Amino acid sequence: MNLKIELSQNRKPKPTDESQLGFGKIFTDHMFMMDYTIEKGWHDARIIPYGLISMDPAATCLHYGQEIFEGLKAYYAEDGSIRLFRPEENFKRLNDSCERICIPKIDEAFALEALIKLIEIDADWVPHQDGTSLYIRPFIIGTETSLGAHSSTRYQFIIILSPSGAYYATGLNPVKIYVETDFVRAVRGGTGAAKTGGNYAASLKAQDMAGEQGYSQVLWLDGVNRRYIEEVGAMNVFFVIGDEIVTPELSGSILPGITRKSAIEILKSWGYQVSERRLDIQELVDAYHAKTLKEAFGTGTAAVISPIGELKYHDLLMNINNNQIGEISQRLYDTLTGIQWGKIPDDFGWSYRVK
Amino acid sequence: MNLKIELSQNRKPKPTDESQLGFGKIFTDHMFMMDYTIEKGWHDARIIPYGLISMDPAATCLHYGQEIFEGLKAYYAEDGSIRLFRPEENFKRLNDSCERICIPKIDEAFALEALIKLIEIDADWVPHQDGTSLYIRPFIIGTETSLGAHSSTRYQFIIILSPSGAYYATGLNPVKIYVETDFVRAVRGGTGAAKTGGNYAASLKAQDMAGEQGYSQVLWLDGVNRRYIEEVGAMNVFFVIGDEIVTPELSGSILPGITRKSAIEILKSWGYQVSERRLDIQELVDAYHAKTLKEAFGTGTAAVISPIGELKYHDLLMNINNNQIGEISQRLYDTLTGIQWGKIPDDFGWSYRVK
Repeated sequence: MNLKIELSQNRKPKPTDESQLGFGKIFTDHMFMMDYTIEKGWHDARIIPYGLISMDPAATCLHYGQEIFEGLKAYYAEDGSIRLFRPEENFKRLNDSCERICIPKIDEAFALEALIKLIEIDADWVPHQDGTSLYIRPFIIGTETSLGAHSSTRYQFIIILSPSGAYYATGLNPVKIYVETDFVRAVRGGTGAAKTGGNYAASLKAQDMAGEQGYSQVLWLDGVNRRYIEEVGAMNVFFVIGDEIVTPELSGSILPGITRKSAIEILKSWGYQVSERRLDIQELVDAYHAKTLKEAFGTGTAAVISPIGELKYHDLLMNINNNQIGEISQRLYDTLTGIQWGKIPDDFGWSYRVK
Repeated sequence: MNLKIELSQNRKPKPTDESQLGFGKIFTDHMFMMDYTIEKGWHDARIIPYGLISMDPAATCLHYGQEIFEGLKAYYAEDGSIRLFRPEENFKRLNDSCERICIPKIDEAFALEALIKLIEIDADWVPHQDGTSLYIRPFIIGTETSLGAHSSTRYQFIIILSPSGAYYATGLNPVKIYVETDFVRAVRGGTGAAKTGGNYAASLKAQDMAGEQGYSQVLWLDGVNRRYIEEVGAMNVFFVIGDEIVTPELSGSILPGITRKSAIEILKSWGYQVSERRLDIQELVDAYHAKTLKEAFGTGTAAVISPIGELKYHDLLMNINNNQIGEISQRLYDTLTGIQWGKIPDDFGWSYRVK
């Protein structure tokens, strides 16, 4: 497919203080856009100046939630190259989300090619400071002008770029997590495995209520039995119980995280016993009381590894590893970010060089 | 609150053939809009010419599904007045959806006042042909420019109007419904009781698959036990079993329909035994075999009453009332539409006169 490029004649000033970037608030000079109609399929791929998009107020994405997205990052590596981390996995997962939400699939190789071109054009926006990155947000929205509750006949695929700050402004500190027992994020047979807007809208209420109690995220239990652990906020979750590292299996209601997948591969390469299986919250409570619950951490693109220092389940406060970063959490964080920032050898071939 | 009005200087031609209106495809000359910021609350209420809205590609509603809506209709009554049906119930439910999806609530009385003004301005767009109506779509979307996965700090509340055709172009005919056993629409603890985009995105796949087999909608079972009946596509559902009329109770995962509520009140006023309770699909199968399953119908704003002529559950095809409209379904349809179109006395006080 042909990729048209229209460069911005009106470049924005770049942020001067990279310690104040925050997350997903500032955007670069350009964006990628491509349209879909039933007649033409995906067409008119273009890189254009970043700006407002206009749509009919009856556009389907504003009413029926037909919207999916991905999230990945570009990093300045030690050798001066800009790198991505397993980007082909993101476009593969975007197509899996397309399948579930009835959106026509994209050409993954072309999408990656277009992203590379977009990053090259806006390369000066990739921040340099340690821990910062260029957050990349590909997304697809239904844009047909129709209030009929059916799949849209028109879509837009857009990629926007946001220079973003270090997730841990003050270093890698353990977070406090609230085990949610009333609200449910997703259920078997639903959309939990897709990166789609509705999953996030569904999670806001519990997130807000946990926040009011001083917890940074919630841990979701399954919607059927309300006892099997699913995921933490916007991350997958791992527990070190005795000599086993456990993470919930991909049951269909949790997100198949790329950091999750990478963490499993790294841990196995180190000789750990990693189990993807059902994990009952009661097993966690028992392990806590038996003092075999050694570490807990979340995995995700934003934080990479997020150590968990406290879990609140009903009235039980489970303090994990004395609220300190565990050995495995720290080693995983160092390894993943080491590969991402090109600081250590990339034995897995995950680092993708943009230029 | 003050309501500013800017009239369109460029009126669109009105549809000439009201039998070709379709649903939710044509929009009137004006729309209502109101903004929310944390600093100002809801403000800048205005009626303006209908047109494209522009938003940042990072607007939260395009990524995290923070969007809710309502649906109601305005009708030309026999006496020449334009009428609504229980509109205060829609704005009440919109605020219930706000609560679940973490959107700041609106002033219900003011919203109704603004809607009335909007309808008065676009009164010439209300179609006259039997069965047609002006479909009204109030909706709220999160519009903050931010990729942070939290509640938006900015919103827009918009009302658009669409002259729409008769739902039953060829009369009130029974529909074929597919009982969905793999996919789940919503679960207890989730967002099923809110009118929010994610519920509709979640239902598209099953809807498409049922459509391919010749079924017009799916009947959803509960996400926990996969046996209790929830709702049909975009409607609530009722079954006449022996002398009892059963509709699923408002469990938290089904939509509290206004037509559902009205149907229950009417049926009770006629002396029927109406039960809002758990209804096991197996009970329905047993009633079918015992020949006590007399009628089935859906209730919703779009169709009002939609008789069900066939239910497919696994390999069992349940033919209901010989695929004919049942006596109760027909009487309910005549009564509800009679009240809506001002053809019969409005004993319940549900008809709301616009002008």
